[in-house]
Amino acid sequence: MRLVKGHGTENDFLVLPDLDGEIDLSPAAVRALCDRHAGLGADGVLRVVRAANDPEGKPLADECEFFMDYRNADGSVAEMCGNGMRVFYRYLQRESLVGQDAAGATRRGIVCVRTEEGQVEGNVTLALGSPRGLAARPGATAAPLAPTGGVALEIPNPHVVVPVPDTDTLVALDLSRPPVVEPPLPTGQNVEFVVRLGERHLRMRVHERGVGETRSCGTGICAAAVAVAHTDGVGADGSTWTVDVPGGRCQVVWRPDGAVELTGPAVLLADIEVDDAWLRQAAGSDLSAAG
Amino acid sequence: MRLVKGHGTENDFLVLPDLDGEIDLSPAAVRALCDRHAGLGADGVLRVVRAANDPEGKPLADECEFFMDYRNADGSVAEMCGNGMRVFYRYLQRESLVGQDAAGATRRGIVCVRTEEGQVEGNVTLALGSPRGLAARPGATAAPLAPTGGVALEIPNPHVVVPVPDTDTLVALDLSRPPVVEPPLPTGQNVEFVVRLGERHLRMRVHERGVGETRSCGTGICAAAVAVAHTDGVGADGSTWTVDVPGGRCQVVWRPDGAVELTGPAVLLADIEVDDAWLRQAAGSDLSAAG
Repeated sequence: MRLVKGHGTENDFLVLPDLDGEIDLSPAAVRALCDRHAGLGADGVLRVVRAANDPEGKPLADECEFFMDYRNADGSVAEMCGNGMRVFYRYLQRESLVGQDAAGATRRGIVCVRTEEGQVEGNVTLALGSPRGLAARPGATAAPLAPTGGVALEIPNPHVVVPVPDTDTLVALDLSRPPVVEPPLPTGQNVEFVVRLGERHLRMRVHERGVGETRSCGTGICAAAVAVAHTDGVGADGSTWTVDVPGGRCQVVWRPDGAVELTGPAVLLADIEVDDAWLRQAAGSDLSAAG
Repeated sequence: MRLVKGHGTENDFLVLPDLDGEIDLSPAAVRALCDRHAGLGADGVLRVVRAANDPEGKPLADECEFFMDYRNADGSVAEMCGNGMRVFYRYLQRESLVGQDAAGATRRGIVCVRTEEGQVEGNVTLALGSPRGLAARPGATAAPLAPTGGVALEIPNPHVVVPVPDTDTLVALDLSRPPVVEPPLPTGQNVEFVVRLGERHLRMRVHERGVGETRSCGTGICAAAVAVAHTDGVGADGSTWTVDVPGGRCQVVWRPDGAVELTGPAVLLADIEVDDAWLRQAAGSDLSAAG
């Protein structure tokens, strides 16, 4: 098995090329590969397959050549990942499978992707569609922050964005356990704590549902910019927001047509050839431990 | 740059073959490679060089063909690592550079290594020399354990081994900060908390100085078996101790001649080709951040 290691703002992935859809990737194999001590280590696996050659990608194959089959490190199936899609696209570009403009099929539909002349080298832009359900609503907190109102939205997964008064407070937050959200969204939520550093410049930390604190969350970065633009009353004015996360920096544009664009780095750093005997054994022993 | 990813009881390494001693491995490059989100991720880098081709290995070159240049993930130089030496040897064996018996040169001198007929596949045995300074001495604790006497020894780095009454207590220990040792050893110490599971069968957790809790520590595993054998009054009787750590299982024999042997798995799981442009940039930006 051949893989490529990459990351987008330190959200890291193993890209698994499988254009013909021939690899049966078990949850146990994903767990073995993503294990950060006994395996290679990553937040997830991005299987790259021609949409026509994958049962889930096939319905989108007329509009889109490649399907991103994203698996979380725990082996579960994920619908979409903004940082992952940038890395997926960078891989397609490196292999000369796409040009400057392309689209990727995901379990959440089609995502348009592009790189632009004059952009910082390595940056990739995604158009994520419009936010939904945007409303000032839940109260939320993480120790030692006092409970405060937040903004809830879906883009496309559910987020609650919580303002924090200053950087010291942001740094001091205990995100080793899930923030308290009252009332929680019915599906659970990612929670972004956000400080204003300057005009249209935010810094944030994020707690992802089911994962914990991460160094970056692509849709969370979009949610933060949209929530603050909404609170400020400027809305979808097409201006550029800069959002700093622990793993790096991204830009967000909430376009006048309602769609949200995320721009950020996508890095490919190594080609990997996995020992097949190791993988069979590691995935097998994982299976027997689960059974 | 070509690397091999491996681990010994989940203490994981990037093996860097450099037989001719031509690679100038900067601390910044080590940090970039070992970064678990922006890089490949590992506890350290094992540079494999012919002793004759390395300034530090050269004095040992008459006795030993290969020198293990071990670097910690933070870029610092390390003297010796029991788990790392097993992985280093496994690599030499895979490349047909050594046979069943060999020796590896380290900054702590020469370590004899072998695999035996009939051993579990993958296991490698190291002879680590004799423990020194063995004495019941410091009191030590980690919340919520009450302070208790420990056994101090060097093998060759300094350890304090602390008995724990049962598995529940072991699991509950807070090792997110360094255990309190009174009085501490002058050089600092690794601390092993140890439960008896049965006759010559131990389970332990370890806090390594300057690192934190790890999934395994080769010399710490030896220290645990030696300390309990010492406490029991059986001493260096040549019998086999089994020691379970979070990352797996090892065997320890304290031979009648005083030397301590460590046997445990060594796994090579992938070959990696690093993008040189990425490494230059990642190591360069690291340097400028440090400067």
